[in-house]
Amino acid sequence: MKMKINHAWILTMNQEFQMYRDGYVVIEDQKIVETGDGEGPSDVDQTVNAQGGILMPGMINTHSHISMIPFRSMGDDCPDRLRKFLFPLELEAMTPELVYRGARYGICELLLSGVTTITDMYYFEEEAARACEEMGIRAWVGQTVIDQPTCDAKDGREELARCENFLKEWAGHDRIHPIVAPHATNTNPPELLKEAYELAKKYQTLYTLHVSEMDYEMTMFRDKYGKTPIEFLYDLGVLGPDTLAVHCIHATPNDVHLFAETGTKVAHCVGANIKAGKGVAPVKEMLESGVVVGVGTDGPSSGNTLDLFTQFKMIAGLQKTHYHDRSAMPTQSIVAMGTKGGACALGAETEIGTIEVGKCADLVLVETKSVNMFPVYNPYSALVYSANASNVDKVWVNGRLLVDGHKLVNVSLDAEREALMHEMPAFVRQAETYADVL
Amino acid sequence: MKMKINHAWILTMNQEFQMYRDGYVVIEDQKIVETGDGEGPSDVDQTVNAQGGILMPGMINTHSHISMIPFRSMGDDCPDRLRKFLFPLELEAMTPELVYRGARYGICELLLSGVTTITDMYYFEEEAARACEEMGIRAWVGQTVIDQPTCDAKDGREELARCENFLKEWAGHDRIHPIVAPHATNTNPPELLKEAYELAKKYQTLYTLHVSEMDYEMTMFRDKYGKTPIEFLYDLGVLGPDTLAVHCIHATPNDVHLFAETGTKVAHCVGANIKAGKGVAPVKEMLESGVVVGVGTDGPSSGNTLDLFTQFKMIAGLQKTHYHDRSAMPTQSIVAMGTKGGACALGAETEIGTIEVGKCADLVLVETKSVNMFPVYNPYSALVYSANASNVDKVWVNGRLLVDGHKLVNVSLDAEREALMHEMPAFVRQAETYADVL
Repeated sequence: MKMKINHAWILTMNQEFQMYRDGYVVIEDQKIVETGDGEGPSDVDQTVNAQGGILMPGMINTHSHISMIPFRSMGDDCPDRLRKFLFPLELEAMTPELVYRGARYGICELLLSGVTTITDMYYFEEEAARACEEMGIRAWVGQTVIDQPTCDAKDGREELARCENFLKEWAGHDRIHPIVAPHATNTNPPELLKEAYELAKKYQTLYTLHVSEMDYEMTMFRDKYGKTPIEFLYDLGVLGPDTLAVHCIHATPNDVHLFAETGTKVAHCVGANIKAGKGVAPVKEMLESGVVVGVGTDGPSSGNTLDLFTQFKMIAGLQKTHYHDRSAMPTQSIVAMGTKGGACALGAETEIGTIEVGKCADLVLVETKSVNMFPVYNPYSALVYSANASNVDKVWVNGRLLVDGHKLVNVSLDAEREALMHEMPAFVRQAETYADVL
Repeated sequence: MKMKINHAWILTMNQEFQMYRDGYVVIEDQKIVETGDGEGPSDVDQTVNAQGGILMPGMINTHSHISMIPFRSMGDDCPDRLRKFLFPLELEAMTPELVYRGARYGICELLLSGVTTITDMYYFEEEAARACEEMGIRAWVGQTVIDQPTCDAKDGREELARCENFLKEWAGHDRIHPIVAPHATNTNPPELLKEAYELAKKYQTLYTLHVSEMDYEMTMFRDKYGKTPIEFLYDLGVLGPDTLAVHCIHATPNDVHLFAETGTKVAHCVGANIKAGKGVAPVKEMLESGVVVGVGTDGPSSGNTLDLFTQFKMIAGLQKTHYHDRSAMPTQSIVAMGTKGGACALGAETEIGTIEVGKCADLVLVETKSVNMFPVYNPYSALVYSANASNVDKVWVNGRLLVDGHKLVNVSLDAEREALMHEMPAFVRQAETYADVL
């Protein structure tokens, strides 16, 4: 089966940032087999006319907790919400069914907004993995390891065992990559962080955790070890090219240097970070030091939406404002961060992140007929500053059409919402007991 | 003609921030005549079932240059773009036809995103006013007064004469309010700023200008007068309750005090300000000092989109980050800024900005069926953090339905785009001569 998309403004995002103003892409089975200017070849089984829309590589969300959809818009402005009600509410009311249904709903949102690869970490992660497998999205999925009683285990050791089972269960899947996800630097003892790292090494997979996010995390490491959390991780020997450090808001110049030295990657979640008033990671310095940075949304409780367009605008605005320089972090570099930057962050740059021959056919068509998308002089600018999630017209993952005409193919959003709502009553009742802090 | 909207989650935005979880609003002719909980009265000519969507007051965009649609996505990251190509390109290529067509297109975007009142300032403003009049939006429209040769006059004096003609022409219109719009503190000599203010006084209308926006503006006033631009305007006697100061990024504590003392209002355009790396106005201090603040998008060349949802997220993120406090500037206060804050900024708080009996029926229904809008615990949070412009389902201005089912009523967006494109070739050719700076 050979399929061609033509009459598209193609952003290949390759090394030279090559564009085809009126170009085509040919897909055979799951791969991109040809790209170029003009109509494209005629010996294809199917042709999709992009009508001048922007065809970009599928976007890569490098950090989320998609099953947290049931929390969205709850207690957004509540200080210290993680400890005040997120942790307790998860312990009390999160169930495998809710994780599964929340994940399916979250995947609907991801696909509809042009995210073709999600990096997720949560509890009962086998349920999230199942949802990703069923719905066709590409995923790096991590069982959380946290050393406190939670909904799926009594402590960190039990979580680690859970995690190893999870790694075994999903090993070798072509689209679903099981990873190791310790919760954070401060929610696991050092030996557990290290064991989790060894587990990731053993299974040759990614190791991802929240790093340098919380004020109290910074204080704790300074007081206890006289180090930053990143210096601590470095000394512990868990930084490296397969480590994806999330947030890194408070990274110091030396921390950035340690990332560069070890090849550690970063997931930048500006929307969640600024909504929480936490600060902004030094992304420009990271990039300038050669550190790979991808874009993440964080969970729908933290950043509220799972699309990258919302993040793109904020990355631009926050970096430019920090440097008091309109030309800092140009739009091309931001779209790159959301595509091939994400691919590099996951160590998947040979598979995804650009529109190049041999890559997986993960593609997004952004239409330019909606009112906010005219005119387009610079397509990167249009994606960063003009577009929103609703402009995503079509989405392919592995060559399979999952969104068509702004709608999910073969999935009913209404049915997904209904199924999720069906699992929510006990959760909502429990949430209501936190009315005093919300 | 009596119309009822029911089964809505109504945010009245009144003094007590009263909400109706499943409420109704009755409109008679152009006014709101009844609101309450439940089904509502049965003696109406028409009923609109809101299906649980959020009904809010029409949003008020307090600063834009809507006719600049042809510039959108051009040279976004170019330093000093105002002087490098915006001013020269306007002088060379802006025409009355382009202002008219750009305005009509911009109004499509405003209405589709739930903005029912626009405050605009540009050249050939009679064309923008005509577009607003035709398309049913409520508007405060200002002829720009700038003391340099531009597309519609040779100098500031000629602009001022143009402005007075414009005031006369549109005097007494119930929906279109002509105002006086000197370009900025640094683009007019003091005597012209003062004369323009006298003109606004004479016609009892609003006086609006860009203030404390540019670094070189700050330097110029410090070097020439030993004052901030706001101190300068205060000494010139042009601050007061009918003055709407735009941007005010670099407002000092004393500047904020001068605004509070004189009752001067502020239009906050965070999206455009941070995209340009200029900085963030001290909005929290302004509000705490009792200064009225409305939300603006700036023109589609500066902020790229004309909707307030994009601004809401940024107001939250930037203020919270500045104060390193998640609870700073709660979402309710942000929605208030985009509705009744804007009404107060325009001196129109008795007419618009809330859903209360006697107010004009400017209403927006935000649907909650789209993937990003579930669940909704706190509707203010959902509007600020979850929603985007595409969630606007229906819009009424003065009781007249202008958007229905996410589409313009009686206006074809495709036809508007075609008509605008028809006027653009000479402009685009001229823009291409700036390729070296873009």
